[in-house]
Amino acid sequence: MSKKIKIGLFGFGVVGEGLYKVLRQTPTLQASIEKICIKDAFKKRNAPVELFTTQKNDLLYNDDINIIVEVIDDAEAAFEIVKVALQNGKQVVSASKKMLAYHLPEILALQKKYQLSFLYESAACASIPVIRNLEEYYDNDLLHSLRAIVNGSTNYILTKMLEDQLSFKDALIHAQQLGFAESNPTLDIEGFDAVNKWCLLLAHAYGIVVHPDKILFNGIQHIGAIDADFASKNDYSIRLIAHAEKLQNGQIAAYVLPSFIKKTDALAFVRNEFNGVVIESSFADQQFFYGKGAGSFPTASALLSDIAALRYDYKYEYKKIHQSPTQLDNSFFLSIYLRYPIDAKMNTDNWVNFEIIDSTSCYAIAKANVTIDELLINDWWKQQNGISLIVLPLLNEQ
Amino acid sequence: MSKKIKIGLFGFGVVGEGLYKVLRQTPTLQASIEKICIKDAFKKRNAPVELFTTQKNDLLYNDDINIIVEVIDDAEAAFEIVKVALQNGKQVVSASKKMLAYHLPEILALQKKYQLSFLYESAACASIPVIRNLEEYYDNDLLHSLRAIVNGSTNYILTKMLEDQLSFKDALIHAQQLGFAESNPTLDIEGFDAVNKWCLLLAHAYGIVVHPDKILFNGIQHIGAIDADFASKNDYSIRLIAHAEKLQNGQIAAYVLPSFIKKTDALAFVRNEFNGVVIESSFADQQFFYGKGAGSFPTASALLSDIAALRYDYKYEYKKIHQSPTQLDNSFFLSIYLRYPIDAKMNTDNWVNFEIIDSTSCYAIAKANVTIDELLINDWWKQQNGISLIVLPLLNEQ
Repeated sequence: MSKKIKIGLFGFGVVGEGLYKVLRQTPTLQASIEKICIKDAFKKRNAPVELFTTQKNDLLYNDDINIIVEVIDDAEAAFEIVKVALQNGKQVVSASKKMLAYHLPEILALQKKYQLSFLYESAACASIPVIRNLEEYYDNDLLHSLRAIVNGSTNYILTKMLEDQLSFKDALIHAQQLGFAESNPTLDIEGFDAVNKWCLLLAHAYGIVVHPDKILFNGIQHIGAIDADFASKNDYSIRLIAHAEKLQNGQIAAYVLPSFIKKTDALAFVRNEFNGVVIESSFADQQFFYGKGAGSFPTASALLSDIAALRYDYKYEYKKIHQSPTQLDNSFFLSIYLRYPIDAKMNTDNWVNFEIIDSTSCYAIAKANVTIDELLINDWWKQQNGISLIVLPLLNEQ
Repeated sequence: MSKKIKIGLFGFGVVGEGLYKVLRQTPTLQASIEKICIKDAFKKRNAPVELFTTQKNDLLYNDDINIIVEVIDDAEAAFEIVKVALQNGKQVVSASKKMLAYHLPEILALQKKYQLSFLYESAACASIPVIRNLEEYYDNDLLHSLRAIVNGSTNYILTKMLEDQLSFKDALIHAQQLGFAESNPTLDIEGFDAVNKWCLLLAHAYGIVVHPDKILFNGIQHIGAIDADFASKNDYSIRLIAHAEKLQNGQIAAYVLPSFIKKTDALAFVRNEFNGVVIESSFADQQFFYGKGAGSFPTASALLSDIAALRYDYKYEYKKIHQSPTQLDNSFFLSIYLRYPIDAKMNTDNWVNFEIIDSTSCYAIAKANVTIDELLINDWWKQQNGISLIVLPLLNEQ
């Protein structure tokens, strides 16, 4: 059962170096890094020089290596690496959420063809073992809903805006200074990172394999002081919530949108750079998992747990994909809050129960009900500065 | 990899019947219950009569059965069952925390001898996959601390006392009416159930195998309105906290005691009948797991997850036990709050910094520092009604 683990590592940035350090401090796992493939041969590295190579085939065609760990940024290059790794009989551990979200159908086919393990716990919520836990649910009827905060940068910014009344800009600068946001934060701030992760979790929770483009999402780039004020007056918090729920027709409603949530909601407990996941199911009832969703060591700890699981050839089963043809149902109505400049160009023809609940000479706030489809197709609300769309709690949750 | 699972089930009470129902609703697992052994042949059961037997050997010596699931109340009978099951080459899943806590050394030896899986995720915190998660930590140096609420009955009672100002008695009656406490609640209320569970988690977290008798513990039987009032004035909550932390000398301080905790502590989020676990570690940082720790379906869901893991012959590795000789260090000083009747018979000779902080003509409240050993050896504080000992947060946590 306990085979010796010999790793070929692609990438030696924050996460790659983190894994290197973590493995050195866990000698009992008996896993060694044999070779590390990097792009820049001249950069100074905190590891013995003989470990490094710039030739990917030194890893992919190396018979001494049985596991490829891939933690590089470039999604297309990452996909090429894992494809060849599987073709060459190597098990794979990956942290590349974008690569995984964009290439999930091909990755499923490759796993099936080569019957090899391909694990990626670190790609969604890093230190939180959410994928492994979702794999435990054997029938998607049992899973009522999955709600999560999957992006730490945006959660940090929202926390600072809501609790310390910082402006979006100041909160973002804070986050960047502390290393919780990239120097180019668009992928985080505008929700791209979150929706990529959500695609992975939808596959494991409900067997839905869908390109990120097909999921309704937005980030927090338009959240402002007026929204924070509305939250405070109604005793809400604001979080960027990834949401999926089983509808009565058996299909799934899913989106990633800024949302008002009650202070008693488990996800309101998730502050600053942390992530959190709430699973509601028939048998286990409510479960809540909380931890760090990014960073060198939290991500490395999830990689380590995948590597350890490969010792007993653990595989994701993707039971829901094989089981039942669940689909996204975008006809689901969301109850939303819309704050907009009074001169905004809007098209709310297909919105229902549109009601202005507050207004000044500059802006108005409305409540309305609108389908996921409508928001996906007519995304004027997403494209204009000054328009902020936030999901409201359901009536019985308000 | 996917072998057919044929279960022999011992016990058809709340948990056993829960598992029967859960398995019927998860046909994709392809696990069937072949036989169910019960004590009382004449009791009406919600399952086909041909499944039942009162002869344990119909299960233990049945070649059609490859997994024994044991969920009976009697710890000694349970131990006999699992012993014979392992001797007969069957893998075992158990929910019997008392049996496990009392017989852990023998169970470890049996697993080693027969090289079979023996899983018991449901025995601690039921729906929370805490044992599986602790197994992921490969070196006990990495685990700074483990703190948990492992008993739902006492947590429900404390919540009602603190939040609704109920008396202990009224809160207990509430808990019994809702099924969160047994008609004879001593095992829960006085901490026996919690310390049994804590023994299991200490083994997986730190490799400590110790009889429950050797661990300092108490329940909530002496908590009263004066204590609740002190909590409220200091912005604390009270929880029955199971605590373990790595000391600078490499040893472990562990206990199960009622504790004041800050409102911002993750464990303060755990209200009513829920359980929660906080793991602080070098790499994953802070992780928090929350869910139902008892009840028919939450327990059955954990049994299901063990049964599913047996399909790929998952075993606990007990790495910390094999790795390093960590011991309990009972010379560790706790900072405690003591409320006592002014005529109480006390012996605080070995207590330090004893300071009365409040008193009336009937009772006094003192703060002091005292070692775990002293509280274990001289347990006058535990034996007298009217004396309430509660752990205070460390100074830097207050």
